[in-house]
Amino acid sequence: MFKFSLIKNDAASSARLGKFTTPHGEVNTPVFMPVGTQATVKTLSPEDLESIGAEIILSNTYHLFLRPGHELIKEFGGVQKFMGWNRPVLTDSGGFQVFSLKELRKITEEGVTFQSPIDGGAKHLITPEYAVEIQEALGADIIMAFDECTPYPATRDYAQESLDRTLRWAKRCRAAKKDRGQALFGIIQGGMYPDLRKHSAEALVDVGFDGYALGGLSVGETKPMMYEMIEASMPALPRDQPRYLMGVGTPEDLVEGVDRGIDMFDCVMPTRNARNGTFFTSFGRVAIRNAQYERDKAPIDPGCNCYTCRNFSRAYLRHLFNAGEVLALRLGTIHNLFFYLDLMRNVRASIGEGRFKAFKKEFLMKREKSDA
Amino acid sequence: MFKFSLIKNDAASSARLGKFTTPHGEVNTPVFMPVGTQATVKTLSPEDLESIGAEIILSNTYHLFLRPGHELIKEFGGVQKFMGWNRPVLTDSGGFQVFSLKELRKITEEGVTFQSPIDGGAKHLITPEYAVEIQEALGADIIMAFDECTPYPATRDYAQESLDRTLRWAKRCRAAKKDRGQALFGIIQGGMYPDLRKHSAEALVDVGFDGYALGGLSVGETKPMMYEMIEASMPALPRDQPRYLMGVGTPEDLVEGVDRGIDMFDCVMPTRNARNGTFFTSFGRVAIRNAQYERDKAPIDPGCNCYTCRNFSRAYLRHLFNAGEVLALRLGTIHNLFFYLDLMRNVRASIGEGRFKAFKKEFLMKREKSDA
Repeated sequence: MFKFSLIKNDAASSARLGKFTTPHGEVNTPVFMPVGTQATVKTLSPEDLESIGAEIILSNTYHLFLRPGHELIKEFGGVQKFMGWNRPVLTDSGGFQVFSLKELRKITEEGVTFQSPIDGGAKHLITPEYAVEIQEALGADIIMAFDECTPYPATRDYAQESLDRTLRWAKRCRAAKKDRGQALFGIIQGGMYPDLRKHSAEALVDVGFDGYALGGLSVGETKPMMYEMIEASMPALPRDQPRYLMGVGTPEDLVEGVDRGIDMFDCVMPTRNARNGTFFTSFGRVAIRNAQYERDKAPIDPGCNCYTCRNFSRAYLRHLFNAGEVLALRLGTIHNLFFYLDLMRNVRASIGEGRFKAFKKEFLMKREKSDA
Repeated sequence: MFKFSLIKNDAASSARLGKFTTPHGEVNTPVFMPVGTQATVKTLSPEDLESIGAEIILSNTYHLFLRPGHELIKEFGGVQKFMGWNRPVLTDSGGFQVFSLKELRKITEEGVTFQSPIDGGAKHLITPEYAVEIQEALGADIIMAFDECTPYPATRDYAQESLDRTLRWAKRCRAAKKDRGQALFGIIQGGMYPDLRKHSAEALVDVGFDGYALGGLSVGETKPMMYEMIEASMPALPRDQPRYLMGVGTPEDLVEGVDRGIDMFDCVMPTRNARNGTFFTSFGRVAIRNAQYERDKAPIDPGCNCYTCRNFSRAYLRHLFNAGEVLALRLGTIHNLFFYLDLMRNVRASIGEGRFKAFKKEFLMKREKSDA
């Protein structure tokens, strides 16, 4: 059974320290969830994930539905057992990926019809009920209501229409859900219209979910706009339930989100950047392919305690990237995810010790200086 | 300083149990050396290599010379420090790769001129002296004399000419070597002519090396032909020095080689096959992409104790391969190398306990049965 406990509210901000319990264990919040799209966080084994301190990962319903199929994963006892990760997993609803197919999909009140890009163009219809059924088969600890990720930009009329449909779908998801062990989160939409965001949040809370997510953000809007949408949604949300900012973001975004009361984040940024040779550090980003690192004996970040930084030089990592060696991708991913998870450990410590605002100020200052 | 100790000679075969000491530690023989071409055993970290019980790896002079360059690796204190592997390394001489360039290289008495395929076609001349200089900069524990890998098939005249040149080059390598910590091995050539093999071995022993390798085998000849060439070379070699069969081979080849007195092997077979989804097991090969494994909950080899077999099903590995996930390559490599290293552990145990011939018989029988 899912249970969220609020441990501490920050006095000077909306930041919160919390913890949630799932059938696969506890998770401390605020938390960053590494993305494991195809039942693997790209390049990492479950052992790697544990060693960097991951407590929960996200996996993508859309991808697992198409390959290897939710029925197969159900036979294995769920995605956790299938991939050998015996800790909590959250699955998204598949909505985001289905809607990104653009020409290949059609929205009706019933659901979304789309043509699969990987199994020879087979047609599939995902309804809210089917999205729940698939996610129950996948067996994640937290599942998401099937929503439309409102595109950006969108007219007020379209945002309203999309939000209303998402709301009707959310109710159908709630009604369809059978598994009592899984938590179901509703997703707030509303485009970049603060009053629509507020309305969406209030209406979802009326339906009643185990947690609330903010969708349709970090889709091209400015940072102030994103913060405004978070702020417009927050007052409607119950303080004793978790809030999840979907698909966000940079290290700065995480700290800003926590400041506004967000408990959960996920993003491909650390993993995708790692595979491109761009590493996050306490002093800004390091593009390891740059010639300046050719003979550099220092680790990526001398202040970092990850496996990669404890054992390898920038010169060696640069060599691996230049030589097209797969080990480069894993060592980079270990570093970038460690950076994100370590940031969240520090965020939690600062809230616990009543110094989150000071932590945030120092963190942002250091990074501005290094980017200048 | 390099030191080889013979621990036990098998009574019923030419198999030997031994041990050699290098500046980076001890190695138990017979040994299989995983191939780390570009200063990384593809997909594995040094930690992975230790966990599967690797005692020594091979790295390729040709590749490291071109990228990142031996001077750079020298600045880092050698290939071991560069790649974070604090155990023994053997480097080949680069000859094998240079000679495979075919149209791009020219052989003279001085050495080989070739055009690099990776740095915009720059011309390089590798002489025996330069091959030693490069390998001294790379700092491996065992280095190899610069040889011509005689092509197959070759006329007797060409094999003789090539062998004689290799012999003159071997003497120049011996004379050029400065580093007293590194061991230098000579390489026996002679094509598929037993008397030339014998002559090559005797002449190299006259020059005097720290060990002797058999080159130019597993290049397209039949198995009986390969065994005949090994048998023709062996009598000339001192019993108290190690013998290394280069670039060989299948699990069966290893056992046959040990039976004939070989102490060291290297081959890309386990690592390359792993990346193609072909796994070695006690009951033959498993091609994991086959549809029959789609819902298979068993590990690759139920009798295997590697990380992959302890944690993942065939169905999950098949999914990772089908989805193009990098983790598949590493998990497969861990399994295949574990299989090879475990085979050598069992070979050593069987020699130690005086039951090598029985071990060999059972091993080959099991595999024949499974391949039938």
